[in-house]
Amino acid sequence: MPELRKDPITGRWVIIATDRAKRPSDFIRQPVPPPAATVCPFDYGNEHKTPPEVLAYRNSGNRNEPGWRVRVVSNKFPVLGIEGELNRQGELMYDKMNGIGAHEVIIETPEHGLTVAEMPERQIEEVLWAFKERVTDLKKDRRFRYIILFKNHGEAAGASLEHPHSQLIALPVVPNQVREEVDGSKLFWDLKERCIFCDIVRQETSNGARMITETDRFAVLAPYAPRFPFETWILPKRHESHFEEADAPTLQNLAWILRSTMRKIDKVLERPAYNYIVHSAPVQESPLSYYHWHFEIIPKLTKVAGFEWGTGFYINPTPPEEAARFLREAGLG
Amino acid sequence: MPELRKDPITGRWVIIATDRAKRPSDFIRQPVPPPAATVCPFDYGNEHKTPPEVLAYRNSGNRNEPGWRVRVVSNKFPVLGIEGELNRQGELMYDKMNGIGAHEVIIETPEHGLTVAEMPERQIEEVLWAFKERVTDLKKDRRFRYIILFKNHGEAAGASLEHPHSQLIALPVVPNQVREEVDGSKLFWDLKERCIFCDIVRQETSNGARMITETDRFAVLAPYAPRFPFETWILPKRHESHFEEADAPTLQNLAWILRSTMRKIDKVLERPAYNYIVHSAPVQESPLSYYHWHFEIIPKLTKVAGFEWGTGFYINPTPPEEAARFLREAGLG
Repeated sequence: MPELRKDPITGRWVIIATDRAKRPSDFIRQPVPPPAATVCPFDYGNEHKTPPEVLAYRNSGNRNEPGWRVRVVSNKFPVLGIEGELNRQGELMYDKMNGIGAHEVIIETPEHGLTVAEMPERQIEEVLWAFKERVTDLKKDRRFRYIILFKNHGEAAGASLEHPHSQLIALPVVPNQVREEVDGSKLFWDLKERCIFCDIVRQETSNGARMITETDRFAVLAPYAPRFPFETWILPKRHESHFEEADAPTLQNLAWILRSTMRKIDKVLERPAYNYIVHSAPVQESPLSYYHWHFEIIPKLTKVAGFEWGTGFYINPTPPEEAARFLREAGLG
Repeated sequence: MPELRKDPITGRWVIIATDRAKRPSDFIRQPVPPPAATVCPFDYGNEHKTPPEVLAYRNSGNRNEPGWRVRVVSNKFPVLGIEGELNRQGELMYDKMNGIGAHEVIIETPEHGLTVAEMPERQIEEVLWAFKERVTDLKKDRRFRYIILFKNHGEAAGASLEHPHSQLIALPVVPNQVREEVDGSKLFWDLKERCIFCDIVRQETSNGARMITETDRFAVLAPYAPRFPFETWILPKRHESHFEEADAPTLQNLAWILRSTMRKIDKVLERPAYNYIVHSAPVQESPLSYYHWHFEIIPKLTKVAGFEWGTGFYINPTPPEEAARFLREAGLG
């Protein structure tokens, strides 16, 4: 008998196929191929092919020259424009505003062929510092209500360039789905006066069935009601609502655990395409006692079809307890 | 400058790329290939390879024998089971229930190689009758709160069998996304005492910019804030909240307009994979003055990536006015 499980934060139900649980080898997929030797705007020497850098950590060289270790530039084809006013207005019965926002690319390394699983820890740590610095800078612009950091890896996950990079989009509104997550966690706070994510960390680390790995500072686990097979969350153990408030030891440990988690995923699922997304509180809101930043990693293993588009209700063919066990048993720290 | 547009029903914002609008030819895609001559459980003579039929319209033959025109069977690999009690229960801090529901397959024709665009109108009409009959029957089971009808066409849209078929899933809960749509339309009713969908039909048929085609009974249009390029809605002009209440002339006309719309989409987008979904009110609720059933068609042209998974905020590279113009100009009735 399949099970219906409710995500405790958003209230979203998912169908977990417990009978014919799919193992990693059941997912037909193509590993993300090693990058080809093509001309790439993110390689050393091609700095002029991107918009000017807004941040770089360098060993040598001047702005927009080789010698950087991590480089952040505006997206050459931004989905939102940085200049202008929102100009909220009606259009007959509808509502619109100008597409004001920021869209930046974090070039994670000058090495074209690396993946997160293969990067040195220190490199990942610097990427995380770049995330923190860019959010801290952009949130001063009061037009921006939400800033999302995410990575698309592999063509199946929506990546159009293979050079390792992540993206930042600053939005003038808080997206509905973020609002639901924040409101859902507030509802729990109103009832219990505890952070629901802190409760999840406590329960899961003590229960163990969905745990993948942990450190002093982080818990990596399969959530109770995942939308996707092998969906994996990285949660800081210390309560904090905004990712950009994370301190140096936290980012250092996060780099270690992100690398370790991606190595497990690459091993068990054979280098799948994936997305990861930083979930963090809306940037203009003060520290929140009820919301808790975290990373969500989604390996791209299944196709979303009519049922999911029509209902927002997901069918997950792999119970999280199974997924966690496979990843836990992969070892690799 | 891109535009942010708000869906008037759900309040969901989307980014519409107005500058570099993508034309149909910009979408890299593979047409859904014509079906191969394989052994198919939905062909005549293989009726024993499916679970027993729950409904069939026949020219000849007995139950579970050839001679049918449309045949409905339980899904051989159902995502939910029909037998048992929900047994809602807690699991430490979480909530779950048994995966009770119904999962049926509507085999739309005995002809393995047809698409909706190629079927005779009368055939499509019978499929719609089967939809209506199955929902009417299943809603008598008070355990089912929501029944979704949908079609996945082509492998990229999640179809695993190529023989023309659609699916029905009866759920013991109303999905969050459906609840949002219903609640959103109720909010408009509370403010205006009018159905928002009726308003949309009136405004769009009079304005014309997003209209694709219309009949006495239906409007086919590109919605103001579509999540996907070439997303297309078919809305009945007469207010009705539940699809299963549609009368004979409505289904007859819907068959005509669904075929005509799919022919336009096939022509302009070169036989893309697609999903369509019947949006209808929760089955245990009385006729609602504020909700309005309709079809939503989503050609599968783009990949959903980290930004969309993280925010529920969609980036649409084709303004609906452009999409509507291409489909309108395709002709074909």
